[in-house]
Formats: sequence, structure tokens, C-alpha cells
Amino acid sequence: MLDTIRWTGSAVELLDQTQLPVRTVYVTISDQRQMHDAIRRLVVRGAPVIGVSAAFGAYLGIRNAANDSIKQRLSEVCDYLGTSRPTAVNLSWALKRIKDVGGRADARDVKRVVLGECLKMLEEDAQCCRAIGEHGAAMLRSLRRGGDNDEPLNVLTHCNAGSCVAVRWGTALAPIYVGIEQGLRFHVYADETRPLMQGSRITAYELQQNDVPVTVLCDNMAASLMDRGKLDCVIVGADRIAANGDVANKIGTLGVAILARHFHIPFFVAAPTSTIDLATATGADIPIEHRDAKEVTCPLGAVQAAPDGVDVFNPAFDVTPAQMVGAIITEKGVIRPPYLEALKRSLSS
Amino acid sequence: MLDTIRWTGSAVELLDQTQLPVRTVYVTISDQRQMHDAIRRLVVRGAPVIGVSAAFGAYLGIRNAANDSIKQRLSEVCDYLGTSRPTAVNLSWALKRIKDVGGRADARDVKRVVLGECLKMLEEDAQCCRAIGEHGAAMLRSLRRGGDNDEPLNVLTHCNAGSCVAVRWGTALAPIYVGIEQGLRFHVYADETRPLMQGSRITAYELQQNDVPVTVLCDNMAASLMDRGKLDCVIVGADRIAANGDVANKIGTLGVAILARHFHIPFFVAAPTSTIDLATATGADIPIEHRDAKEVTCPLGAVQAAPDGVDVFNPAFDVTPAQMVGAIITEKGVIRPPYLEALKRSLSS
Repeated sequence: MLDTIRWTGSAVELLDQTQLPVRTVYVTISDQRQMHDAIRRLVVRGAPVIGVSAAFGAYLGIRNAANDSIKQRLSEVCDYLGTSRPTAVNLSWALKRIKDVGGRADARDVKRVVLGECLKMLEEDAQCCRAIGEHGAAMLRSLRRGGDNDEPLNVLTHCNAGSCVAVRWGTALAPIYVGIEQGLRFHVYADETRPLMQGSRITAYELQQNDVPVTVLCDNMAASLMDRGKLDCVIVGADRIAANGDVANKIGTLGVAILARHFHIPFFVAAPTSTIDLATATGADIPIEHRDAKEVTCPLGAVQAAPDGVDVFNPAFDVTPAQMVGAIITEKGVIRPPYLEALKRSLSS
Repeated sequence: MLDTIRWTGSAVELLDQTQLPVRTVYVTISDQRQMHDAIRRLVVRGAPVIGVSAAFGAYLGIRNAANDSIKQRLSEVCDYLGTSRPTAVNLSWALKRIKDVGGRADARDVKRVVLGECLKMLEEDAQCCRAIGEHGAAMLRSLRRGGDNDEPLNVLTHCNAGSCVAVRWGTALAPIYVGIEQGLRFHVYADETRPLMQGSRITAYELQQNDVPVTVLCDNMAASLMDRGKLDCVIVGADRIAANGDVANKIGTLGVAILARHFHIPFFVAAPTSTIDLATATGADIPIEHRDAKEVTCPLGAVQAAPDGVDVFNPAFDVTPAQMVGAIITEKGVIRPPYLEALKRSLSS
């Protein structure tokens, strides 16, 4: 499988996602400045892998430090890396974890302990996604009815919640990657996902690299695809899941969910339990970021597609009501409605 | 208002809609091959003006023919032009009309008679769109309830069925242009309409040119907009209306209709009765053109947005079932369900 991040023993190699889908290029990161730049420029993107990358960035920033200044140095490097994507919660979470672990260690052990923690985070993330994949694949297998086992399962996904957001496997695509290992067959339909086109640029790319049959469509073609009876289910990721099961995810997810309901196609969300936020009662409490008009009026910065000065509606996320979500696939298992109790239980288990 | 098509006395000038919204350029069309190319490349687009354009194309194709072969020539030229956009029923309707008129004329009168018919169609189209606007504006006025007359009516439209699809006024936007003349106020939300972005490129452009407040959104943002309670109704055009009221229109229309139904927002179609095809029993009988993958993978020909060689689903149209259509606004009046009898009546009146 395509690696998003690799530790060579002396440096980090990151798949440069700004070059996708045209070129597959790995960037070698040897110090904290290069890592800061890579995170800031979106060479690496997606909450899980940003956290792990930042942790390695912290290690690279202290590996040449003298023992008598290493804790001070660790603290400075972590603060510095935290400014690379100031709003990414996972980034500050990962850096705090590294700072805490290093801070508790004996000065002469800090380097070893921090590197160990980085490698542990790398492994944990892969295991979490793998578990999402295992639970999801088992559920998808149950969608296969009667004698049509030779037909691939046709799955629609929106945006990119695949291996490129994580160390490996990803979230929404993990059930597909793991299912294939287990003998299931898939055909994935990837919504291009305007405005930033993560679906056609990244999802289609990683599936193609991993030999999974994939078809790209514009977001507004999903209804036609469903109307033709082509889809067995929809699987998307999540940016935040409220306590009642409402799901904030990339703009367009709500529309896909409504269409899926209309056509009686199961709609699933796959996400780690770290995405569940019990402090957020419902989707109405999730702030929705509105982004630059240029993302809409000038697709991928390449061509003017709307008249100068036109007003634009460009919310980055929408909220899909819990009652449209057939199941939430997590690393701890598949959570079914009613969600309020089930989500609470999954976090305390 | 900007002209979409002009007859100079010796050639047709078409507003090159592939250049909008950046440049206002007219293409001079002097023969039938150039017209075929212009229709196929969407230099000119939208059922009404395609019909008028094709008629002029037929004239351009026979104007140098000798009298003894002119009827044979007319027939060939019409057949040839009919292949430029196979799904557009208005195209074959206009060409049949030209062929019939020319066929009935004395051989030496064919050129004069055909040109006269083209000019008549130009005038008829403007009058037809005006009538759609009058009937539509009256209907929209009835959506205004109680004391909120100071608020603009918020209308979502998909693709472009404005003045740029017709000689003047257009179809879906005609009720808005005419309504404004009559003192109604509007805010139009324009779906960008991937892959060719006629919504952001053309609808937003012409509304802005005509001082109508307009907001552009990506197709996948319509659900979020509806969820916020922003919309009073949806109005779209039609490429073909089957005898039972099923509506073929630009890809994405079906999705908008399903979302509108979900959010209890009225969904209207505005189209001339020439779009109604009683010979097509239902939408299932309407052939759906599939277009080049590059339209999806390389937005507006400007930037690679998907990996090389990826499979693409790119239907140009979809079919909205009659039961989702609240009313069909035509030049003869507003047609309400049940459509089977009402459409038949409207064509025979």
C-alpha cells in the first residue's frame, strides 16, 4: 500500500499531497523547520497524520540537542510546530503528548523516549485505522445478499478519508482496503468534492495506486448514479460527531445522505472514536467555517469560473442528522442508532 | 440585455459562451459546419437558441445551392445539423420545421422562405420567453405570503436557463427578469453546475450584468443552503419533457429536486411547450448523452484534477420524475399535475 509517512531511521519521508494526482513525490524531512513547512503547505494533510508528523518534527528538532538544554529545547520546538496549522486540534494534542512524555523522562533519555513515542503513535494510528477496516469490512460483507457474491460491492465516498489522511488504511476507505484482503471485491465511486476536489485528486489517486477499481464523478452526478441502481452503500469520514450522532463532515455530505435515503441506499460514517465529541450536544452546536470565495470562483486556482466580484456561499462543512446515518464504524466496533447512549458507551469502554 | 444570437444579414453572430465569464466574444458563423461545431462545442447552448441557431445553420448550408438540388441539400444539411446535440429535442423540432417549410416551397423560393422562417423563429422565441416570464412572475408573486413583501424571493437555479439560452429573457430566469420589471424582488442562488460550470460562468454573469443579486455555490452546497431555510423555491429549465411530465435537464437537476422535496421547497420547471415531447412516454425513453471524461478530470480544460487514466461517470443530463415537479411554466400558462392530460391539452390549445 501507498505510504503517507515513513520513518527511515534518520528522517521522515512524506508523500507530497500538493503534487497529487499528477506526481508521486516523497519529500525528505530532516529537521523541524522542514516539517513546519510541510504541514503549513499541506504537503501532509488530515488530522491523524498531521499529529504523527508533528511528533516526528519534534524529535528531529531535539535529536542534536545537548542533555542540559534538551527539555527547554523540546518545549520550544513543540511550540514552534504548533504554529504550523494553528486550528488543527490533533496537532496540539500530539505535541502535548510528546512534550509530556519528554518532560517526564530523565534528560539523557529524552531523545530515546520521544522517538519511541513517535513510533508508538505511528503504530497506534495504523492499528486504529486497521480496526475500523476490520469492523467495516465485516459489516459490508453482511450487505452481500444471496447469490450475487461475484459482483463487486459498489460504494460511493465523498471527499478523502483514505490512507492519505492517516499513516495507513484511512477511515472511510479502511473497510474497503481490509475487505479486499479478505476476498471482498469493490468498485468505488469517488465524488470529486468541490471546491478543493479531494475526491478526484486524492481518493481516486490512492485507490488507483492500490489497484482498487474507481470511477470519478462530479458531486451533482451522485443522484443519477443512485437512480441507476448502481450503489450498494455510501461510506464517508467525519470531522466531528456530536453526542446525538449528528455528523459534521466535508460540505456535500448532507446532500449525499439525503439522496441515499431517498434511494434506500445505506449511508455509513467511518471515524475513530477520537472524532466523537460528547461535549457537543448536536450538530447545531458545531461551528461551520466559511472559506475563501476564490475556492469556488477559481477552481484549484487555475481558471476563472465566475464573474469578478460575485457573491459566494462557501461553507467548508455541513451537518448530517443522526437519523440519516445507518451506522458509525469505529475502531471499537460498529455503533448503531440510537446514538446518544451508544456513543457514550463506546467512549467509556 | 446582452444578445445571444444576431443575424447580420449574411452571417450569424453567436455570443461565445465557452469564453464567459471572462470575455464577451462573438463568433461569426458563415456555414453549416461552423454551426454544427458551435452547437457541439457549446459555444451556443440551451434548447431554444440551439433550435434557432440550427435553423440558421440550415439556411447557411443551402444559400449557395443550385435550385435543382436545393431540397435534397436542405434535407442533408438538416440531418447533419441534427447530429450536433442528439438529446436536444428542440434541435430536431427546429430542423423539421425548416425542412417542412423549405420542402413545401417552390425550388426557387426555398432560400427566401427558409431565411424568412429563421427570422420568424428568432422573433417567436423572444415572445415565447416573455410569455413564460409573465406566467412565471404571476405564479411567484403568489408565493409571497402575508407581510413579508419587503423580503426578496430567494430562488435557486441550476445550470443556465436564462437569457443566454434564448434570444432574450430565457426560460427559468424569465419569471425573474419579468418579475423585477413588475416590482418583485429576488435573490438568485446559482449552482455552479459541474462539469462545465454554466451556473457560475453564465447564470451568475448574466444576472450580474442585469443587476439581479446573485450568489454562486458549488452544487454540493445546495443541501446546506436549503437546510438553513434560505430558499423559497427552485426554478430550472428543461431539455425535454416527456408525455408523463418527467423532465430531462442538466445533470444535477434530479439531485436538486430530491433535496427540494426533502426540505419542502417548491420545485418548478420553466420551458417552452416545444420542449414537450408527447412521443416520449416517460423519462426512461430519453437517451442520456455521456460526455468526455476530460470535462470532469480537467475542469474547464485548465488543470488536472484526477489521476491519469481514471474511469469517469459523466452523463450530461438526468431525469427528474414528474411527481417531483410542482408546476411547469410554459408560454401558454402554468401546467400543474397530473401532467399526462395537461401536457396534451397544452400542446393542442
